[in-house]
Amino acid sequence: MRRNYLLTPGPTPLPPYARKALAREIIHHRTPQFQEILKEAHENLKYVFQTKNDVYILTSSGTGAMEAAVSNTVCPGDRVVVIEGGKFGERWTELCKVFGANIELVKVEWGNAVDPAIIKDILDKDKTIKAVFATHCETSTGVATNIRTLGNIIKDTPAIFVVDAISSLGAVEIKTDDWSIDMLVSGSQKGLMLPPGLAFISVSAKAGNIIDACKNPRYYFDLRLAKKAWAKTDTPFTPGISTIIALSEVLKQMRKETLDVIFSRNKKFAEAVKKTMVALGLELYAPSASSDSITPVKVPTGIDGVKLVKVMRDKYGVAIAEGQAQLKGKIFRIAHMGYIREKDLTVCIKILEKVLSDMGYKFKRGIGVKTLKKLLG
Amino acid sequence: MRRNYLLTPGPTPLPPYARKALAREIIHHRTPQFQEILKEAHENLKYVFQTKNDVYILTSSGTGAMEAAVSNTVCPGDRVVVIEGGKFGERWTELCKVFGANIELVKVEWGNAVDPAIIKDILDKDKTIKAVFATHCETSTGVATNIRTLGNIIKDTPAIFVVDAISSLGAVEIKTDDWSIDMLVSGSQKGLMLPPGLAFISVSAKAGNIIDACKNPRYYFDLRLAKKAWAKTDTPFTPGISTIIALSEVLKQMRKETLDVIFSRNKKFAEAVKKTMVALGLELYAPSASSDSITPVKVPTGIDGVKLVKVMRDKYGVAIAEGQAQLKGKIFRIAHMGYIREKDLTVCIKILEKVLSDMGYKFKRGIGVKTLKKLLG
Repeated sequence: MRRNYLLTPGPTPLPPYARKALAREIIHHRTPQFQEILKEAHENLKYVFQTKNDVYILTSSGTGAMEAAVSNTVCPGDRVVVIEGGKFGERWTELCKVFGANIELVKVEWGNAVDPAIIKDILDKDKTIKAVFATHCETSTGVATNIRTLGNIIKDTPAIFVVDAISSLGAVEIKTDDWSIDMLVSGSQKGLMLPPGLAFISVSAKAGNIIDACKNPRYYFDLRLAKKAWAKTDTPFTPGISTIIALSEVLKQMRKETLDVIFSRNKKFAEAVKKTMVALGLELYAPSASSDSITPVKVPTGIDGVKLVKVMRDKYGVAIAEGQAQLKGKIFRIAHMGYIREKDLTVCIKILEKVLSDMGYKFKRGIGVKTLKKLLG
Repeated sequence: MRRNYLLTPGPTPLPPYARKALAREIIHHRTPQFQEILKEAHENLKYVFQTKNDVYILTSSGTGAMEAAVSNTVCPGDRVVVIEGGKFGERWTELCKVFGANIELVKVEWGNAVDPAIIKDILDKDKTIKAVFATHCETSTGVATNIRTLGNIIKDTPAIFVVDAISSLGAVEIKTDDWSIDMLVSGSQKGLMLPPGLAFISVSAKAGNIIDACKNPRYYFDLRLAKKAWAKTDTPFTPGISTIIALSEVLKQMRKETLDVIFSRNKKFAEAVKKTMVALGLELYAPSASSDSITPVKVPTGIDGVKLVKVMRDKYGVAIAEGQAQLKGKIFRIAHMGYIREKDLTVCIKILEKVLSDMGYKFKRGIGVKTLKKLLG
């Protein structure tokens, strides 16, 4: 069987120890055996989140945790700020609309990061703002938001700071407590190297008070039920047992490797891939703002970007991501996080060169792989 | 490593082909490769549901699909009937309360099935009833509800019929279309032999109209979004890819084996286990009403039921279920569905005999295993 190379920003490849854990005989969840696993996973999740707060494990994809963040805090008519600079920022907007928020929408041109001064200005003028929603790494554009600066601005206001770290947690630095993030939301299928199906959400004391006071109808994602169950090392509903067992294995490995080593590797990969794109004569999308999780690249003029991604995947088994929504056909995205390693990147660049060349793009064949290999050392 | 025997009513053991599928390299979900798997799984789910309606796959545990059934149909003040005869009937009540329903609560004594005439009477008198919520197999008591008769009563009223088949689908006969069920809800970890993490919900045309008109705030479980995505063989949010791949393998096997063969096996197992309990001098809980998925058994006087289950599991690796809530310590439950086979049942009875004997219960040692083996042939 041909090896498939997966360089999409979620799902990312599963390491062998995760696959082995997924294939284990299943055990019942209301047992001391499972509780031990849950407890260890929880402790190690707190390490990855860099928080002393509780981190709840939800059985859903990342959007479920985003809904939990909104449905547990935003009541009809509440004033909230949403920073929206891509498809996943739009998801915050949609969720806040569904739950009846009075939204101060901060639209950021796709490919750019928000200017924190704009948020400061809004919060200075309006003391009724209850929450600020942001996206750490906007998966659709690759843009990284300056969460640290925003956290500093928000922490002394009545507002809570809610951050989507779905494609950044475990991939690039994000410090929940130090950066004053009240609710950090993530998913299993990106930096945590697991199949999709688990979502995570941390809750600060400031957010906890709002959750307790919130009257919205909610049940499966009710964080009061999660908190109550968590106190007994339990979950309110049947959890995704097999994925949690694999999660505990992955987190053990991450802790052993340390976040610093993981973040440095991803940073090195990001820089190498960016320079490789330039060597190929390609133009980076959002060159000054992009996250170390993903490199977004403009499709060169005259090349069909949708076809490029399709041929790489269907003919050569190398999956990268195409552009979404308004960027469809205009960019492609190469992920370098989780279990993606030198070999994956090298094969990816080799195939990218081959397909670009076949499609008529002019460049010096081999320069990409050569540049990459040199930079990866 | 010691083999563990799992005879709990969810999770149930994973067959080798499911475990193998879970351990596969992951693929991206927005690809023709995954769409093909999703399409096939969907077709085979319709076979298992015995329906021509759409069946949506949600990435959550079964309770998520229960929430979807309520949040998409029940608006504040709506009149609904909830049939509640155990912990999972109570879950319908809780969900209907959360979404503001005006509930006609039909409490059934635990261990008994509802008398359909009561429901007919309510529906005859009150034409404003919008939905009737029932539990096919009440996992906490093992009681089976007569869904067929209820469906016949409800079908000619304005009400929709919503059935929790979480611990019955793929284990005992349930005919969505023939029995006029408007929304059938299930999960992955029982008759479908997978880890928890996927939920399923079928939607009739009658239910579809109510969903479209419903104004409740909802997002992750919004069935309008599920329908829209499904039309393009897609899911609205990142799905539980690995579990869906395993689902497609399990459903293929089930279709090959046929539902009739599966249901007959479970029926034979249920009858054999029940007679084995009687041979051991034990008293069945709900003898006239229990489902073929689970055999509920009264803990004999003088025996600590919690300890019995704990010792069987922790000392001998045989997991059965204890009683829940008001039945804690008073009953134990043996599941015989999914991938549970003769060997599992034999080991279970052998260990049950051993532990009962060690705990001082008087009976003819060996009579259980002998009875079971004779009946299993």
